[in-house]
Amino acid sequence: MRCLLLAAGAGRRLRASASSRPTEPKPLVRLLGLPLIERAILAAKQAGCEEFYVVLGCEGERVRKHLGDGRRLGVRLRFLLNPQWERGNGTSVLAAREVLQEPFLLLMSDHLLDPSVLRSLQEAYERGALDDADVVVAVDRRPPEGLDLEDATKVRLEGDRVVEIGKCLPSYDAIDMGAFLCSPRIFDALEQTREDGSLTAGVRYLAQQNRAKALDVSGTFWFDVDTPEALRAAERALLRQLPKPTDGPVSRCLNRPISTRLTRWLVNTSLTPNQLSVISFLLAAAGALAMALPSYAALAVGGLLAQISSVLDGCDGEVARLKFQGSEFGGWFDAVLDRYADALLVSGLSVHASLVQGGTAPWLWGLAALSGVLLNSYTADKYDAFLKKRLAEGKRPLRLGRDVRLFLVFLGAILNAPLVTLGLLAVLSHGEIVRRVVLLARHTRDGRS
Amino acid sequence: MRCLLLAAGAGRRLRASASSRPTEPKPLVRLLGLPLIERAILAAKQAGCEEFYVVLGCEGERVRKHLGDGRRLGVRLRFLLNPQWERGNGTSVLAAREVLQEPFLLLMSDHLLDPSVLRSLQEAYERGALDDADVVVAVDRRPPEGLDLEDATKVRLEGDRVVEIGKCLPSYDAIDMGAFLCSPRIFDALEQTREDGSLTAGVRYLAQQNRAKALDVSGTFWFDVDTPEALRAAERALLRQLPKPTDGPVSRCLNRPISTRLTRWLVNTSLTPNQLSVISFLLAAAGALAMALPSYAALAVGGLLAQISSVLDGCDGEVARLKFQGSEFGGWFDAVLDRYADALLVSGLSVHASLVQGGTAPWLWGLAALSGVLLNSYTADKYDAFLKKRLAEGKRPLRLGRDVRLFLVFLGAILNAPLVTLGLLAVLSHGEIVRRVVLLARHTRDGRS
Repeated sequence: MRCLLLAAGAGRRLRASASSRPTEPKPLVRLLGLPLIERAILAAKQAGCEEFYVVLGCEGERVRKHLGDGRRLGVRLRFLLNPQWERGNGTSVLAAREVLQEPFLLLMSDHLLDPSVLRSLQEAYERGALDDADVVVAVDRRPPEGLDLEDATKVRLEGDRVVEIGKCLPSYDAIDMGAFLCSPRIFDALEQTREDGSLTAGVRYLAQQNRAKALDVSGTFWFDVDTPEALRAAERALLRQLPKPTDGPVSRCLNRPISTRLTRWLVNTSLTPNQLSVISFLLAAAGALAMALPSYAALAVGGLLAQISSVLDGCDGEVARLKFQGSEFGGWFDAVLDRYADALLVSGLSVHASLVQGGTAPWLWGLAALSGVLLNSYTADKYDAFLKKRLAEGKRPLRLGRDVRLFLVFLGAILNAPLVTLGLLAVLSHGEIVRRVVLLARHTRDGRS
Repeated sequence: MRCLLLAAGAGRRLRASASSRPTEPKPLVRLLGLPLIERAILAAKQAGCEEFYVVLGCEGERVRKHLGDGRRLGVRLRFLLNPQWERGNGTSVLAAREVLQEPFLLLMSDHLLDPSVLRSLQEAYERGALDDADVVVAVDRRPPEGLDLEDATKVRLEGDRVVEIGKCLPSYDAIDMGAFLCSPRIFDALEQTREDGSLTAGVRYLAQQNRAKALDVSGTFWFDVDTPEALRAAERALLRQLPKPTDGPVSRCLNRPISTRLTRWLVNTSLTPNQLSVISFLLAAAGALAMALPSYAALAVGGLLAQISSVLDGCDGEVARLKFQGSEFGGWFDAVLDRYADALLVSGLSVHASLVQGGTAPWLWGLAALSGVLLNSYTADKYDAFLKKRLAEGKRPLRLGRDVRLFLVFLGAILNAPLVTLGLLAVLSHGEIVRRVVLLARHTRDGRS
């Protein structure tokens, strides 16, 4: 499905006080490493859209120059000019009248949207939502924290019908999220309301004819970035989304708070998630090498490097999600590097323990810890799928994951107890695997065969 | 969808010469550990059927007693009696007239069918196949090797319409596989042809009225077991299906030929796949323990046990597939036990090498081999998914799997070269992982991010 993306406005309220970059057109204002308009395009791409018409107005040439033909973003962009942009965003939609003769998605370049909103609109289309309407407005009954409610466009609903829309409704049911599924007949409505010039006026015209519907996607992430305060609130909201429900205790309390702060800075560099994975691995490898030396100082430095690597290990995924750079291969590559880092760290600890106290105990505990640590990861996929089910049921089960293991390595190194650490890693990780097998055997419907 | 299962016939041709079990009713004749009728029921269950009407006739009471209410097989069975069973299998279908008033699947208890045949019939129903027909016959244009063609029921087709059906057609297009999707209107046709008494006569009657269609599922597995020769051919055909396309070279040339022979015997015991997984693991654990002793004899015995365990490791999956005992947990449990077996064997080799020659080299190579072996398995899922795509493209890429690794352990132990074996395992498996990462990075569309 094609997308019509409005990027013609001046964004005066945002630029008025964004003193640091006063000359940037609004669509190019950066949020966590990406210009707003690129966020809108990449979110739509994740929802399956690959063809965009972008309506330009105020400082359009700079926006067009920045985006090019879209190949850099993996999409096809075509540009339309609305010289009348000052007369309202409805006139910007009208600029696409000649080129869009089939149903399309309509988006704002200054709205952050979760891709699922666009998928829902497309599904609504496939279910025939445009059979008895000319526009479907995505709405949220619970507007996000930090949103400028006064300036938001509200809708009043009767069932799934929009009966009134505007900024100043005496009472309302939900907020217009700035994402629409449109039939080409919306252009006629906008011609009728050309005097007013706003998109809202066109939708109101359709609502009066009982031709406007709402799609309730309450609770999905979205944000309207109109002011410098909204920009900062949007950044906070995006960062708050980064921790995962399956994060372990060390990750939750120590690693994520640091890694998200780090990520906030990293998104403004050109480092890719895969490069960050490699850097995190190299830190762990350096830590393992240090630990393999016989001195306590080296052991402690090695442990510290392991913990730093553990923190940084969160950043690759965070940057990937924030900059739409995630890939299936990237996730797998990161996981394989993590396993190598784990293997090197356990080996480094074993070598250190053997150098310090000799005998076969360090090696045997090393082999046991190594197999335990790697098999913990080997059994994690299956267990995590199970965990997610339990989390959905509101339970928060125990999880001995990489965050805990690396923290143990760090503590063990600082406390100069390499052999105890190996023993703990072995006992805990093998115990955890046995627990997983028993748990899955008991809870899988077919676990008794 | 409900199933009507015909099990009323006498099966004279099969029993005439099956001298070893002359008194067994045909539905209870065993094929690779399961009575024919249980195979039919379990295959249908795998295709989603859980409710069966079983029509009994000759020696019906024994069959009913054997099956019970079906709870043992995880389905619901209800029995119908056809006292006129000698007058033809059409009269057996008619016995269900009162209880089946909606569309149903019709199966023969002496036909082996791949579950996909029944899934295809159900999909045909969902696509409206019964809108313009009263019966849909599953047909095969390439009858399986070993089938008694002379006795098979043939069909002549025009498009997807059956125009003639019978054992003695002068020319024909395909073979009737003994699986049907029926509307209740088939009962009227069978009433009309009650004189003849056969199901074929009823289908022919419908064909004459242009109300019989065929569903082409050529190439899927099926077998009609009518004679002792057919029973043996069916056994061979089932066993031929066991090797997997992703089997490695040692598995293909050595392990599978032995394991399938062993499985042919194991299916007649009450050992479950999970029990076989445990036995295979215990053999490997015993092998590891033996290798950890300092003498060459113990090392060699340990290596031999490892190879025997590797062969037996094929049997759990083979028994599971042949006896419909496969489960998601079972497959995972087997994989986890395999990893533990691998870890123990590598550790055993390391201990042996250290006892024999001392120094740190055996331990370092042991840690390297252990991580390589386990990470080989860790990366296998992803790589195998990729492999299958390439196999589908007709390529047969290299695969360094468990079969090769355990064979190396076996050879290394026999040749009294534990350290060389550890080195080989380490180098080969880490090399293989690097190869996988490079290959997947190159061939994943998103591998460049």
